[in-house]
Amino acid sequence: MTTLPRPSDIDMLGLAFDEDPHRGRFELAQHLARPDGALYGGTAIAASVVAMEAATGRPALWLTTQFVASARVGEVIEVTTDVLAEGRRIAQIQVSGRAGGRVVFMSLGSTAYPRDGGMEGQYQAMPRVAGLEESGGTPFGPGRMPDSPPGFTMHVEYRRSEVQGDDEPGAPVVVWARMTDGRPLTPATVAFLADMVPAAIVRAAVPNADEMGPAWATSLDNSMRFGTVEPEEEWILLEMRGHLATGGSAHGSVFVWTPDGVLVAVGGQSANMLHGAGPATAGRPPMEGTGGT
Amino acid sequence: MTTLPRPSDIDMLGLAFDEDPHRGRFELAQHLARPDGALYGGTAIAASVVAMEAATGRPALWLTTQFVASARVGEVIEVTTDVLAEGRRIAQIQVSGRAGGRVVFMSLGSTAYPRDGGMEGQYQAMPRVAGLEESGGTPFGPGRMPDSPPGFTMHVEYRRSEVQGDDEPGAPVVVWARMTDGRPLTPATVAFLADMVPAAIVRAAVPNADEMGPAWATSLDNSMRFGTVEPEEEWILLEMRGHLATGGSAHGSVFVWTPDGVLVAVGGQSANMLHGAGPATAGRPPMEGTGGT
Repeated sequence: MTTLPRPSDIDMLGLAFDEDPHRGRFELAQHLARPDGALYGGTAIAASVVAMEAATGRPALWLTTQFVASARVGEVIEVTTDVLAEGRRIAQIQVSGRAGGRVVFMSLGSTAYPRDGGMEGQYQAMPRVAGLEESGGTPFGPGRMPDSPPGFTMHVEYRRSEVQGDDEPGAPVVVWARMTDGRPLTPATVAFLADMVPAAIVRAAVPNADEMGPAWATSLDNSMRFGTVEPEEEWILLEMRGHLATGGSAHGSVFVWTPDGVLVAVGGQSANMLHGAGPATAGRPPMEGTGGT
Repeated sequence: MTTLPRPSDIDMLGLAFDEDPHRGRFELAQHLARPDGALYGGTAIAASVVAMEAATGRPALWLTTQFVASARVGEVIEVTTDVLAEGRRIAQIQVSGRAGGRVVFMSLGSTAYPRDGGMEGQYQAMPRVAGLEESGGTPFGPGRMPDSPPGFTMHVEYRRSEVQGDDEPGAPVVVWARMTDGRPLTPATVAFLADMVPAAIVRAAVPNADEMGPAWATSLDNSMRFGTVEPEEEWILLEMRGHLATGGSAHGSVFVWTPDGVLVAVGGQSANMLHGAGPATAGRPPMEGTGGT
């Protein structure tokens, strides 16, 4: 069985744990931030995954990370893990992230040893999509201002794909994604790559969304549920849908696939939707969470 | 705007709040428990919804409730709400439920005032299903032992329906559901009725699941995201899917519809899957959460 936490995840986040693995910290580096220098939601959920795995020695099964406040590049984020219940197989866990004493994110989730002979299965199929070579013509990823640093996209590549034979309303947004630094695929990197559902909601809701850019939805949370994640995988496909919007908030979901059609994760996110003003008039993207509400 | 918390929700749960609405409590009555006398997960998430709404005066937008430990009929559950961040429109909240000092459930979520002129939309359609009169021939709901009390099904009715023209693998489990006591539909009652995804996972995974009963999956959590919930609605349709199982754990999701095809909520749950032994040999259903792992 894999020893947890994985060194490659620790290295990605720059996480340092105390001798007691219930406490750790990392500096918010450029490659963990959004292009505007604020904490990237995918970093908060990835750090929560690693903290849960470090405290229990078991792989992450599911978690929800709530984005409470922002943090800026250079700040140190203290990660504290409370194991609320620990059974023989499954542990129930809470993780908090704090910067300068204020709560930045909170997470709830489970880690679980696989049960020998336990149920295994996949009950749906990957959509047929354009392959890697035919994908990437349409930009995908966070909007960037001129001269802004790349943020977390420094080590990430997204290639917008297309569902084949499905132009109907309700068709998902499909995007190939990978870490470009040769890092193995883990629940933490899957969560890091897949924090993109609000961008899909924007595209479902706003016909000219590609011109507006994905920054116009700010995530409130990210909930991920993991299957078996094989470290030798490189590319994953994000199949994302916006479900509904109400009073300026919206909900969406993601299925995460390997190129061979193995479902490795499912997720959901809610977001604060900001539309009606393009990035050119409104300046830099608003913060995650409630800061701008 | 509706005054929150809603009296009908307070009444359903028997919730009593202090003068400070961040603290309240309710007794785990029979109609809030499973037939085996343990806390029903739908009660934990419904109580969390009402606590969030009471503390902030805003309607619930999304929440995740983690089932940490069980509680028994007759125990008093103390509900404590911490508002982690409060913007003009959106609040980020944590709720805990404790019985006899031990943590029974933890929740994270947001409440939000609707924004005037904010984004509204629905980006998918309800499946065509058999109507109420043609539904209910196949039993659905928690397994019951002879002479066991009805538990939460006392005031709930489920009618198993069928998707029309779709017998393929991956077809959802569709179930009509309502409160039978004339209670208005609210985010809390939607959450109470919809805590049924593990039953759908069992049906996706195990061909003879109808004989085994839904009790053989125990929820670890429930995550719900709400649209506009109109109080005059009575019946809702639960469209549920199992996505995958790994090492004895599994994940699924639910879309909640009005009979007219309005999407009122989307949700996800993870569960500990117990199979290979039928209820006749294994006695009463296991507890929620990690107690039996």
